[in-house]
Amino acid sequence: MGGLTVLAALRKALPDEQFLYLGDTARLPYGTKTVETVQRYAAKAASHLIDRGVKALVVACNTASASALQTLHAAFAPLPVYGVVEPGADAAIAAADNSGVLVLATESTIQGGAYQRALTTRNARIPVYGRACPLWVTMAEQGPQNASFTRTVLQHDLRGLVPGGPTTLLLGCTHFPVFTNRLQDLLGADVRVVDSARTTAAYVAEQLASTGLLGAHGGGTRYLATDGVNRFVQVGRHFLGEEIQQVEVVDL
Amino acid sequence: MGGLTVLAALRKALPDEQFLYLGDTARLPYGTKTVETVQRYAAKAASHLIDRGVKALVVACNTASASALQTLHAAFAPLPVYGVVEPGADAAIAAADNSGVLVLATESTIQGGAYQRALTTRNARIPVYGRACPLWVTMAEQGPQNASFTRTVLQHDLRGLVPGGPTTLLLGCTHFPVFTNRLQDLLGADVRVVDSARTTAAYVAEQLASTGLLGAHGGGTRYLATDGVNRFVQVGRHFLGEEIQQVEVVDL
Repeated sequence: MGGLTVLAALRKALPDEQFLYLGDTARLPYGTKTVETVQRYAAKAASHLIDRGVKALVVACNTASASALQTLHAAFAPLPVYGVVEPGADAAIAAADNSGVLVLATESTIQGGAYQRALTTRNARIPVYGRACPLWVTMAEQGPQNASFTRTVLQHDLRGLVPGGPTTLLLGCTHFPVFTNRLQDLLGADVRVVDSARTTAAYVAEQLASTGLLGAHGGGTRYLATDGVNRFVQVGRHFLGEEIQQVEVVDL
Repeated sequence: MGGLTVLAALRKALPDEQFLYLGDTARLPYGTKTVETVQRYAAKAASHLIDRGVKALVVACNTASASALQTLHAAFAPLPVYGVVEPGADAAIAAADNSGVLVLATESTIQGGAYQRALTTRNARIPVYGRACPLWVTMAEQGPQNASFTRTVLQHDLRGLVPGGPTTLLLGCTHFPVFTNRLQDLLGADVRVVDSARTTAAYVAEQLASTGLLGAHGGGTRYLATDGVNRFVQVGRHFLGEEIQQVEVVDL
């Protein structure tokens, strides 16, 4: 579901590309599964998309990017495979000052530490903090209702962020960009909120251009899901920002 | 995960039985999947347990009980297959007065309407209400910390339960019994909280006795999980009420 925020950003950055989007709705969420299981599911999804002739693959999920990007590279080279962790870390380091970066993500992303490592590798002097926000995925999928309740949950998970704490927030889950405005309201204009959707889209656009892979056929998107088309369409529009048309069910 | 509340109740009701518990941790949660997918996953899990020689099957999940009980009966007869919906409905109707029954459950259980139908079939004059509580599963899996926050979420989802509303609450999700005391505190002693874990255990004990299937070999439990043993052990103890020993990983 969250990958639709990345798709929305990609479509904006690359209006002339054709996109094939696969939502693994039968097996979501990936955020509580082991690395081995995520690698297995990601490989199956990638194979299916490659069989349909894609020229490049964007792993629009933080858990799958953190757990499976290397195995996908190894399995499907020379096809370009882009994840969301590295572009997110680049953007956060570019935005950060010495107060540090706070990564907000699912339990498994925080425990796995991929963002923390990517940030520290880029600049070891910027302090890096991580916080698991276990309710946010479900809350994001509920849509925009209950504004005051959403605020209570966000405030709870941001408790202890006193003045002097990190002023850069990295949204390390593709579900979380739907909370960007609320986070900015809660934390004030001094806090920079970086999400990996926009930064990944910019990175993919740059890479396609530099490797001569840019399309010029007029844009368009086709949707595939592994289960539950109704829920995919109803919930997905909150993340895509528009209605989802025509979903094909595939069995992986 | 929530099935462990049913297991805990079964072990108490049937101390001389041997239990084989399968947690489909690779594919949880079932609560957002389609009926067809839940039926497929439930059949695979049931086959695996039957291959290991079980004498009866308890579907300790509301979603799977509501979606797959009939297909499991048809596929595996004459093996007894027990679900949690019917015993829960029996107990709620026995407890209810004319103010009605409020079913609290996941999105898909409420939308599917299995509890509402089971209740209305038993007594069409008792009003039946349903409310989806989408955050409770995740919150239950976080364990007992954050008491005040938990209270806020429960209060939010019980909003509008004014005097004159239903005084019987049926917890239609196996995760929810961990909130029983808090719900009782919030709503007062006049509200009866019925959970399907205890009522299913009592029903299964009665059925095994009446069909001559009671065991007398000394109790014991073996645990199987399809993924993520660490998380299963850490999260599962909140639901089981004790530590989980030795989990075997199986691939369905």
